[in-house]
Amino acid sequence: MSVTAPRGFRAAGVTAGLKPSGRPDVALVVNDGPTDVVAAVVTSNRCRAAPVLWSEVVARGGRGRAVVLNSGGANCYTGPEGFATTHATAERVGELLGCGAGEVVVCSTGLIGEQLDRPRLLAGVDAAAAALTADGGHDAAVAVMTTDTRPKEAVQVRAGGTDGWSCGGMAKGAGMLAPALATMLVVLTTDAVVGAADADAALRAATAATFDRLDSDGCQSTNDTVVLLASGASGVGVGADELAGALTPLCADLAAQLLGDAEGSEHDIAITVERAASEADALEVARSVARSNLFKAAVFGRDPNWGRVMAAVGTTTAAFDPAVLDVSFNGVQVCRDGGVGEPRDLVDLSARAVEVVVDLKEGRARATVRTNDLTHAYVHENSAYST
Amino acid sequence: MSVTAPRGFRAAGVTAGLKPSGRPDVALVVNDGPTDVVAAVVTSNRCRAAPVLWSEVVARGGRGRAVVLNSGGANCYTGPEGFATTHATAERVGELLGCGAGEVVVCSTGLIGEQLDRPRLLAGVDAAAAALTADGGHDAAVAVMTTDTRPKEAVQVRAGGTDGWSCGGMAKGAGMLAPALATMLVVLTTDAVVGAADADAALRAATAATFDRLDSDGCQSTNDTVVLLASGASGVGVGADELAGALTPLCADLAAQLLGDAEGSEHDIAITVERAASEADALEVARSVARSNLFKAAVFGRDPNWGRVMAAVGTTTAAFDPAVLDVSFNGVQVCRDGGVGEPRDLVDLSARAVEVVVDLKEGRARATVRTNDLTHAYVHENSAYST
Repeated sequence: MSVTAPRGFRAAGVTAGLKPSGRPDVALVVNDGPTDVVAAVVTSNRCRAAPVLWSEVVARGGRGRAVVLNSGGANCYTGPEGFATTHATAERVGELLGCGAGEVVVCSTGLIGEQLDRPRLLAGVDAAAAALTADGGHDAAVAVMTTDTRPKEAVQVRAGGTDGWSCGGMAKGAGMLAPALATMLVVLTTDAVVGAADADAALRAATAATFDRLDSDGCQSTNDTVVLLASGASGVGVGADELAGALTPLCADLAAQLLGDAEGSEHDIAITVERAASEADALEVARSVARSNLFKAAVFGRDPNWGRVMAAVGTTTAAFDPAVLDVSFNGVQVCRDGGVGEPRDLVDLSARAVEVVVDLKEGRARATVRTNDLTHAYVHENSAYST
Repeated sequence: MSVTAPRGFRAAGVTAGLKPSGRPDVALVVNDGPTDVVAAVVTSNRCRAAPVLWSEVVARGGRGRAVVLNSGGANCYTGPEGFATTHATAERVGELLGCGAGEVVVCSTGLIGEQLDRPRLLAGVDAAAAALTADGGHDAAVAVMTTDTRPKEAVQVRAGGTDGWSCGGMAKGAGMLAPALATMLVVLTTDAVVGAADADAALRAATAATFDRLDSDGCQSTNDTVVLLASGASGVGVGADELAGALTPLCADLAAQLLGDAEGSEHDIAITVERAASEADALEVARSVARSNLFKAAVFGRDPNWGRVMAAVGTTTAAFDPAVLDVSFNGVQVCRDGGVGEPRDLVDLSARAVEVVVDLKEGRARATVRTNDLTHAYVHENSAYST
């Protein structure tokens, strides 16, 4: 169900022939209203793909009827011709739905630096529009997969009004919003009645606490987009906080699915920084650890290498005293007061989930950043596959 | 010859039994004067090893008689006991040479978070002092190796005075000064007559242009130290600029040797950013590319993936317009004006040396950062070997 779980949405996923594999590659998600609220968060990379440039402007208007997505090509660094392809895609969706191109969000994922086959893509849009159904969410989720091994879908249901309201979502990617080049595309839907400003605030709050704190490989994508459509079909009015309260666990669920399917990974690592002087300090330290190749390679080797954690902490500007830092792996405090703590042998890193806690002993703030280990398979996938 | 090439120096390398392999592990480099000038640059990591804390203070005084180095243990995150080991090592060298402990620089490399065997280390110091010779530079270079596959040595000779003057150096490490956890230790010697302030300025200038622009894996070591001893034995007086003029090519030579021996690497990559608005911009962009795991994995796969270069450029704050960027690999301009340029197939990445040029078209500044590719062997070495 995913994006079609809330009322007022139809979706489809079809095969347009953009992927050499012949797998589904065009998805369409349509908001049938009665409201047409849209909000989006896109990559902060300054070198962006054509669909990102387009969709940012659409979202700024606050009104959107549909999201059209393709895999099989990122349409990135493709110049004016690439932008014209994005524009033509939105125009075609607008014609088919009876709305303006400016109400259509466009997302693309796949290889960078190659033109999409525009005729095939447009024929795929026609086919997707013809295939739209109220339970097409799963097909849409399948059609946006690239190196994903499985589609990612989630739903959150809330009480309220006659039948309550809900949010649904689908995601693709082995990467993440802020960082990672393996494009992350996320479409969220809700049947709540919400204003455009509140929808935007709720989406930003939810992504900041979830997708923004995933850091698979420290690389920032050119195409990452998270878009929210609100249909208002439940008749239940919500504010920004209430909507964020449903979107945040929804995004956390999708984020966990992304992390669990990250390219070549063997471990999901949660790095929590405790007792920081500020949340910004906690985040900076957690991100620094999450980006240490040496730390990530050690986890792959099942080595609770706290020295590499300390070294990563030491590169930050956060407030801390090296002589009192504690570091634990899966509950074993292997580093105590900046020196040797409990024996490394007590740490078991054979399971996929790894919890690393860094105690800065400076204040009361905390933050968690999630990442993966650095594996042979990561190197293999990313040396053999052009993105 | 290396550190014993300039007049006024003796050195030795011996086996103290700190390494399980039974290979040489203690080195001593002694300045016999007539001058005893010392300067040092150490890691900017805030979590530093005991010998770094000690040696920084020694170098601040500007007077140094010797450098004692050990492999087989980094003496890092070892608390007060570890610092006492460093102090005892300097004391022993001072007794043997008839100088104060405060004139002895100490460097350590090897595993983090383990105490050194102090009796063995001190016995090794005794043996090294007894073995000092005027041609012991090579033995010293061998004794500081860890994962290095070969010792690194270099010499620069300059005209002047009766027989001119010279600089010598030795290095160990698969990493680098600013970044990389695989400790880089470098000892440089000169028989020029130079003041302490000039020696310090020359050393900083030379390292900023060489070791600071190596970035093997983006990780910053806890032990990195570059130390310069000046004996004055040539009788030739030099200023900071003249000394930097000899030290810079010497350091560049050693840096190239470090890069060529980096853990598990198959390519040496030079990333040059041209026509930047400022040198700081050029450096920021080059470093960002050098730290992109996706770019580095692509080079390992012999894929001239300019999209990943663009994406790394896009994460910086440098002045540039994405629509006019050019990127070339080994002279082939695969990206022109932010889009597809010459065919990728024209690029041959089979040789070890890879040149990537990013043209920002903003100004006249340029900078080069050197790095390695991300390989299966890198992951293997760093998952199997605890640092």
